[in-house]
Amino acid sequence: MTVRIAVAGASGYAGGELLRLLLAHPDIEIGALTANSSAGDLLLKHQPHLLPLADRRLQDTTVETLKGHDVVFLALPHGHSAELAEQLGDSAIVIDCGADHRLTSADDWTRWYGGEHAGSWPYGLPELPNQREKLVGARRVAVPGCYPTVSSLALAPAVDLIEDEVVIVAVSGTSGAGKSLKPNLLGSEVMGSASAYGVGGAHRHTPEITQNLSAAAGRPIKVSFTPVLAPMSRGILATCTAQLKTAALNDAVNVRDAYEKAYANEPFVHFLPEGFWPTTNAVLGSNAVQMQVTVDEDLNRLVVVAAVDNLAKGTAGAAVQCMNLALGLPETSGLSTVGVAP
Amino acid sequence: MTVRIAVAGASGYAGGELLRLLLAHPDIEIGALTANSSAGDLLLKHQPHLLPLADRRLQDTTVETLKGHDVVFLALPHGHSAELAEQLGDSAIVIDCGADHRLTSADDWTRWYGGEHAGSWPYGLPELPNQREKLVGARRVAVPGCYPTVSSLALAPAVDLIEDEVVIVAVSGTSGAGKSLKPNLLGSEVMGSASAYGVGGAHRHTPEITQNLSAAAGRPIKVSFTPVLAPMSRGILATCTAQLKTAALNDAVNVRDAYEKAYANEPFVHFLPEGFWPTTNAVLGSNAVQMQVTVDEDLNRLVVVAAVDNLAKGTAGAAVQCMNLALGLPETSGLSTVGVAP
Amino acid sequence: MTVRIAVAGASGYAGGELLRLLLAHPDIEIGALTANSSAGDLLLKHQPHLLPLADRRLQDTTVETLKGHDVVFLALPHGHSAELAEQLGDSAIVIDCGADHRLTSADDWTRWYGGEHAGSWPYGLPELPNQREKLVGARRVAVPGCYPTVSSLALAPAVDLIEDEVVIVAVSGTSGAGKSLKPNLLGSEVMGSASAYGVGGAHRHTPEITQNLSAAAGRPIKVSFTPVLAPMSRGILATCTAQLKTAALNDAVNVRDAYEKAYANEPFVHFLPEGFWPTTNAVLGSNAVQMQVTVDEDLNRLVVVAAVDNLAKGTAGAAVQCMNLALGLPETSGLSTVGVAP
Amino acid sequence: MTVRIAVAGASGYAGGELLRLLLAHPDIEIGALTANSSAGDLLLKHQPHLLPLADRRLQDTTVETLKGHDVVFLALPHGHSAELAEQLGDSAIVIDCGADHRLTSADDWTRWYGGEHAGSWPYGLPELPNQREKLVGARRVAVPGCYPTVSSLALAPAVDLIEDEVVIVAVSGTSGAGKSLKPNLLGSEVMGSASAYGVGGAHRHTPEITQNLSAAAGRPIKVSFTPVLAPMSRGILATCTAQLKTAALNDAVNVRDAYEKAYANEPFVHFLPEGFWPTTNAVLGSNAVQMQVTVDEDLNRLVVVAAVDNLAKGTAGAAVQCMNLALGLPETSGLSTVGVAP
Repeated sequence: MTVRIAVAGASGYAGGELLRLLLAHPDIEIGALTANSSAGDLLLKHQPHLLPLADRRLQDTTVETLKGHDVVFLALPHGHSAELAEQLGDSAIVIDCGADHRLTSADDWTRWYGGEHAGSWPYGLPELPNQREKLVGARRVAVPGCYPTVSSLALAPAVDLIEDEVVIVAVSGTSGAGKSLKPNLLGSEVMGSASAYGVGGAHRHTPEITQNLSAAAGRPIKVSFTPVLAPMSRGILATCTAQLKTAALNDAVNVRDAYEKAYANEPFVHFLPEGFWPTTNAVLGSNAVQMQVTVDEDLNRLVVVAAVDNLAKGTAGAAVQCMNLALGLPETSGLSTVGVAP
Repeated sequence: MTVRIAVAGASGYAGGELLRLLLAHPDIEIGALTANSSAGDLLLKHQPHLLPLADRRLQDTTVETLKGHDVVFLALPHGHSAELAEQLGDSAIVIDCGADHRLTSADDWTRWYGGEHAGSWPYGLPELPNQREKLVGARRVAVPGCYPTVSSLALAPAVDLIEDEVVIVAVSGTSGAGKSLKPNLLGSEVMGSASAYGVGGAHRHTPEITQNLSAAAGRPIKVSFTPVLAPMSRGILATCTAQLKTAALNDAVNVRDAYEKAYANEPFVHFLPEGFWPTTNAVLGSNAVQMQVTVDEDLNRLVVVAAVDNLAKGTAGAAVQCMNLALGLPETSGLSTVGVAP
Repeated sequence: MTVRIAVAGASGYAGGELLRLLLAHPDIEIGALTANSSAGDLLLKHQPHLLPLADRRLQDTTVETLKGHDVVFLALPHGHSAELAEQLGDSAIVIDCGADHRLTSADDWTRWYGGEHAGSWPYGLPELPNQREKLVGARRVAVPGCYPTVSSLALAPAVDLIEDEVVIVAVSGTSGAGKSLKPNLLGSEVMGSASAYGVGGAHRHTPEITQNLSAAAGRPIKVSFTPVLAPMSRGILATCTAQLKTAALNDAVNVRDAYEKAYANEPFVHFLPEGFWPTTNAVLGSNAVQMQVTVDEDLNRLVVVAAVDNLAKGTAGAAVQCMNLALGLPETSGLSTVGVAP
Repeated sequence: MTVRIAVAGASGYAGGELLRLLLAHPDIEIGALTANSSAGDLLLKHQPHLLPLADRRLQDTTVETLKGHDVVFLALPHGHSAELAEQLGDSAIVIDCGADHRLTSADDWTRWYGGEHAGSWPYGLPELPNQREKLVGARRVAVPGCYPTVSSLALAPAVDLIEDEVVIVAVSGTSGAGKSLKPNLLGSEVMGSASAYGVGGAHRHTPEITQNLSAAAGRPIKVSFTPVLAPMSRGILATCTAQLKTAALNDAVNVRDAYEKAYANEPFVHFLPEGFWPTTNAVLGSNAVQMQVTVDEDLNRLVVVAAVDNLAKGTAGAAVQCMNLALGLPETSGLSTVGVAP
């Protein structure tokens, strides 16, 4: 089976990571690569690590260019996917790495992103309860945000054991911000420095995490989420804590059991043996999520630490995983749990 | 006034930072510099940045070597300070950068550090309520831990406004771990990676933060504390959150007011104007703490973010500040709020 | 075809990288994994990124453990390979990532490494003139050093155009030093800092580069080589300069031509289009060498810049490439030219 | 003595470093701070580490604003200094951190920078032969480029011992490129990566190094210069090599002697004891240059390694040092040789 794909937004970090992964996928033929202001450039100028595509040029992002592919990946700023997807019609599977179709609530969308809601698509986190079945054979997929991926997977197995409020502080590499030319993203500013942003519940991934955990819990979960920028290109390490319900008091065994059951058969989520804690470089470039839990017995509080590569499983890897499900290919095809370390 | 000082543990990071700061202090004459396994070495071998001391050699850490100085700084592993301090008697002011005399509860000491409690000394965080007066003229000072410094200052002004449990996730540079030769502290492992440690309330700074906040609140405060190692040499960025009491509901004004009042006259704690958030490189090498607060109105939750240089205000800067208070010198002598950035 | 392999030294960086690459190789079954002081540990403790091998334990490095594999990779400190190889006899292909069998001159060996020369094996840099043919079907391979790999490939095409002395300054990540627990390799020391070492021709890779370039030139080439440690885990960027002979004066065209010809059919050496310069992150994790040349016309001096991942093409990737040649597999099997960036 | 100063270009890295140093200078009162597009902003927005100036606002860069100060520092893009300096007339000492007045040859200026040469000013590297005397009492100073500073100091003592061509490869942090919003300067691109630029003699600092070394030698010296960007904010480590003349053959003693003599009385240039090699973090934030030399005896080649902080002694520190000389203050006033490490 040869699947012909196109990538819209191939000059950015998510687009580059998609192509890196797809080049290793046995069933893929890489078709059109498009960009906006960089259209006409050699891809190599923007993705110097993709040598097998060194001769390719970026084309304009138009429906004409993108048509005629089996799968079209959209790695565009939010607000740009809906129209393109409609124009492409049902001829192609469309996998949107952007935010446009993640939120199910139109009110949430309008509050957090502004403008009209484009509707929601099957949500590309198959490891969440009852989610994989919606992705098999899907023609549209909304790839989750990077923080929601790691945060939701870190807490979903525990929702029955915890109270209704969770606190998440997630340390992230800078590639999550894309290639935006902002002073605070310059190497000189980033190296040797840590900084928080979107503090006080202001980050747009907050409603997405809330949506996922509330769905998993079957009741509203409140999410305190603070992202912290650290001096690394890739990787998110999320520290997630929540009060345990009285019934779980001091019951670290129950907690471990819940996580082991949840992820025993998941190919990409790895619940570590006791005594091992995740690090972001262990998942770098891979589709793996590494995770460990413990209970702070003085406080009867659950603490989960989880690591993910924001560009891989956090974005492009999830997109490929969902493509596999949509196409009926093996879910792990072209993907790996092996990180590039040290 | 010329004050003659000695540093025990001059080959390590805390010792080096003490010397860096003391070299800029107008009233200090640097006397004996001691070490353990490195005794006999040129200081330059261990502290290549201290050129004015390039000709100095490290001596053995003995009471004979340390006697005869006005102030003796101890930058030793925990458990080594009490005996030295006793031998030095009252002839010298002793400022202990280690943990031995920080905890007031002997039970806490035994639980967290093991062995017998050496007793507590005046606690060197003058910005905490009623603390400065205990340091003026003191002959013994226990310099706070780096995480407790930033965490306690971040939350102390709010203790009357919040519920009894706080969650702190603090991202730290690697110098906080000292020059320990452990594989996970190698540059190849650290760069490009974030990792949590001491998770689940297992870090020894937890009881110290608890002690400080409970004292400030006049009631027991429970502390969920998770430290995260990030790829930078220096700096801690602490994200501290707590549920606001009903009375403070949506009252961001009260919160800002509390912080402004608390630190209006503090020379080193800088509560930032609205819209500005702290970064660790802005305080690098300085004795400043930068801080910002907000209220997550969806959750009625306080979020404070604070930055400190773990080696400066987090250790050696605090030691110099306390020395100034002990000696009756201006508190800011030899210290600065100017960071080295970018 | 299934090839059963063993790795001696599987706890280190070179061993980990070998396993990372071999896990992606279609024809490989991973057998014994051995270590010295870490024998008995879970591999996961030392290689947390190798999840598919998470259940494996490290065994002792003995001939009994290593016997019975088709290929044995040795990733050991120098001086430990010869005896093991002899004991293994001809039953296994032995691929030595260490230095023991790289130098052809016994005098050079004794001067640079001390002790008796173990003899030389086919040298695993197939891109050098007349080298590939010696590797096809070989039973023993000496994998080149990382600096010699990039330096030799950078200058070999130009040996007929340049005078007899070359100057190489190579900036390297810290993983080249292995997991050695030395203070100067701690993250706190490495981050934010650059430093030279082995200055003045003192680095052991100097005679290896000299050997390669002299062989390519058919005359003695003198090599001034200075390695510089930079704050990154992986990657070498070599800046190589040499005086052009009079006949090549101002002849940038001839120079480009020589490089294009030399590497036109090489799958892993990529001579970049004009205007593009190599960066180490573009080759991270890949088996590619990226290269660009120019002529400083004011000085009639050739300047070549080349990038390689020291652990991949610089060590473990070359080992796999040579294994492929030794076994008669496609040379590129299990290897990629796609880097992990950003 | 109180000297009132102004800084034009106070929002950039050089401007920020000037202010950091001047805040520690005992004789300075900080007057107008100007910018271009950032005029009107709080300085804190651009220089969050300069807390004592947290209330200051940036003004427009006009002669009216800059007039009435004793010293005006210009930290502007090249081409902007000459006109401002002329308008300021002789009322102020003008210290230009830009390139406009560094080159003595109008031809060189036009070739490397384009446009008309603004003329040359006393060159602010007092450690070069016969240079200090031109700076004492000067009303105009051209602050050297960062690479020329470290390269010239590294080689000047040896000019009588070496042949006419030198090869310099200098590894630099990214702050040397300023706050330019270019994709290749983003943290995501810079971290974990090394890259060369201005290769083949194309960097504008080449003629400046050539000018300095030729002046020191009294004969033309040819300079092969390659700058390499490394993942750190600050610091330059220059590796400088040159063939020794026959007369100096194997004469490492003569070489050390030349360096010891040259810098014995220099307060900021530190020739290290044998066995010690410079690192950039040892000079971070300081006005020191650390240096070591050796002779590669196989090649009879001198190798010098020198470290400097590009923003401090490489730019702003040199500017303050020259201001001191110009005003007749002690040359070291407000400056330090103590780096911020680790």
